[in-house]
Amino acid sequence: MKIGLLGHGVVGSGVTAITDSCAVKKVRRLEVSKILVKDESELTDPRCTLNVEDILEDPDIEVVAECMGGLEPAHTFVARALGSGKHVVTSNKKMFAHYCEELFALAEENGVSIRYEASCGGGIPWMTNLARVKRLEAIESFRGIFNGTTNYILSRMAETGSEFAENLAEAQRLGYAEQDPTDDIDAHDVKYKTALTAVKAFNTLVDLDSIPTYGISNVAAEDFSWGKEHGLTLKLLGAGKAGEEAVSLYVMPVFVKSGDIFANVNANYNAVQSDSRTLGEAVYIGQGAGSLPTAHAVVQDLLDIYQGQDSENIAPKHLPVNNDSVKEQFYIRTQRPEVFAEVAAETAGNVIITKEISLSEVNRLISSAEDRSLFAAIVSR
Amino acid sequence: MKIGLLGHGVVGSGVTAITDSCAVKKVRRLEVSKILVKDESELTDPRCTLNVEDILEDPDIEVVAECMGGLEPAHTFVARALGSGKHVVTSNKKMFAHYCEELFALAEENGVSIRYEASCGGGIPWMTNLARVKRLEAIESFRGIFNGTTNYILSRMAETGSEFAENLAEAQRLGYAEQDPTDDIDAHDVKYKTALTAVKAFNTLVDLDSIPTYGISNVAAEDFSWGKEHGLTLKLLGAGKAGEEAVSLYVMPVFVKSGDIFANVNANYNAVQSDSRTLGEAVYIGQGAGSLPTAHAVVQDLLDIYQGQDSENIAPKHLPVNNDSVKEQFYIRTQRPEVFAEVAAETAGNVIITKEISLSEVNRLISSAEDRSLFAAIVSR
Repeated sequence: MKIGLLGHGVVGSGVTAITDSCAVKKVRRLEVSKILVKDESELTDPRCTLNVEDILEDPDIEVVAECMGGLEPAHTFVARALGSGKHVVTSNKKMFAHYCEELFALAEENGVSIRYEASCGGGIPWMTNLARVKRLEAIESFRGIFNGTTNYILSRMAETGSEFAENLAEAQRLGYAEQDPTDDIDAHDVKYKTALTAVKAFNTLVDLDSIPTYGISNVAAEDFSWGKEHGLTLKLLGAGKAGEEAVSLYVMPVFVKSGDIFANVNANYNAVQSDSRTLGEAVYIGQGAGSLPTAHAVVQDLLDIYQGQDSENIAPKHLPVNNDSVKEQFYIRTQRPEVFAEVAAETAGNVIITKEISLSEVNRLISSAEDRSLFAAIVSR
Repeated sequence: MKIGLLGHGVVGSGVTAITDSCAVKKVRRLEVSKILVKDESELTDPRCTLNVEDILEDPDIEVVAECMGGLEPAHTFVARALGSGKHVVTSNKKMFAHYCEELFALAEENGVSIRYEASCGGGIPWMTNLARVKRLEAIESFRGIFNGTTNYILSRMAETGSEFAENLAEAQRLGYAEQDPTDDIDAHDVKYKTALTAVKAFNTLVDLDSIPTYGISNVAAEDFSWGKEHGLTLKLLGAGKAGEEAVSLYVMPVFVKSGDIFANVNANYNAVQSDSRTLGEAVYIGQGAGSLPTAHAVVQDLLDIYQGQDSENIAPKHLPVNNDSVKEQFYIRTQRPEVFAEVAAETAGNVIITKEISLSEVNRLISSAEDRSLFAAIVSR
């Protein structure tokens, strides 16, 4: 089966590393025949090309693996590949979270499939296992540590008691964080993965802007001190709960109990959990990023296509996001504590621990506080 | 697809609970048409029978699901089912660990498959995910908390500082431990699951008696005190490592670091981990026992058969077990500390912490000590 690979960076080069040298005969049948690279410095292999038409117009190429990242031109190339009857595998959560409705429809129209295991949780077989559980019963809820960069920073802050800025700089030095880290630290990346998990778990498309998304750029060493005193560890989670009329979805730092499985998921590991009626809690932990683990997930998707397994295409519903039923206590550190006075259970200086209130309510209060330095987190009971 | 169910106890009744009432249309096609029960008190359903011939000789029954437990008559019934061209799904680790060679061969001869997801790790899709990784690369090693009863006892001892006997009694009161708890506390149950994981992960059959197996019946509160002082948590693990000429396999309590993912796997949860070249560490955690989670795994196997997925039959190799390469420090509490003097790094009364030595060596020393009250564990570095 001939494959056209779009992008030869961290993930793309992992894909060729696996397919070119694999000891398993079946994997060697996956032949990456052309590779789109972005400039002449990357023309390191006779299969490399700077012209995407060499891939999109090659009738021998049955599958396009998109590992470019970013919205464009990845989206246009994927749409054209599906339109010309090629299956697609993508590791690009940002692009796919924005365009999955259009791309599912295009795949359906053209009798091909689009797979996205590598878009969430790196190597963790999250989409595969969600699909397996769903053969038998509905997914009721999920939560995940979906971002290795922020998990690395939070783990280091917990270990060392140091401040956010120095750990971000360290993560950048080590190549764990991008030079522009906004997508990670402001949690857009987790929002995309949360939305894509909702597609798979709950069969619903959601408006990305309707997912309340709180990142970690305002987190401080004092927040970890408070957590430690209370036997809690800070993690950035994406989470969701199914519903008939609406789904609950949010992205927010959470103080988890130190005995929680997620509390020991450190460094650049990811962890995901689903809950369903008979299976109960099912947790999967693995390397959430990195060249080979993510490429492993891409190659698994390619194998599924090669073996002609059930198409992943679905025609999802459109449910609104409603977080009225997410009732929690919240940790709010703000210059404007007075805004939260009515919902406060405890106040210590500029830190408020709220009574149990809904996430919808806390969202409204945070908006009205207009404090750009505010840090908010859920406190697990 | 008509199914004959052997056994209607904890797991078997979970199977009918799922198949009889499932909202998913595909699962409702799995029709449990007859149920073998053990005595008249269990004749609670018109499908129940006391005569196994009603199932084995029914040509409409395509699949037999064996949830009886124990060696006989389960083994004979399964062999006859395969011999008459019926697929088999089993949750019975003891029976399957003893007879898998014969049963794989029978399945092969008769063009049917035998599946055993529910035999290890309850609801955790362990066999399925091992098989998926193996599509791409070899499993290099694995470890697991495979037994909920002992994990419950160890978790309670860690929490409360209490002694083994009272926690075993409590587990029996709660129905977590059998009246004869030998298979659990002496770790035979974990040995079976370790051997079956080796079949799937390493394609090898092993002599069950060749797996060094240390249980927890001699564990004491003082062992937990030592662990706590050293930032370690005690867990009973089954583990293995692949090799060309031999495999390493063992079952032993392990002091894991308190930051280890496994340290937070408590109560009756199970956790399993595989390691492979490109995916790296992959951890799966879930309910390791109980009616519905284990039945979930049985029904997933039934769905795989219904959907005609790749047969699970393999013709495994026969590799010997050799633990020379398992080099660890060991915690030994014994009435005969002098036996371990030469390998001791630290000695405190009747507790020895060994230098880094091989598991093979420590096995020989433990045998020669002839101390029936000895407690041994690996100390993670």
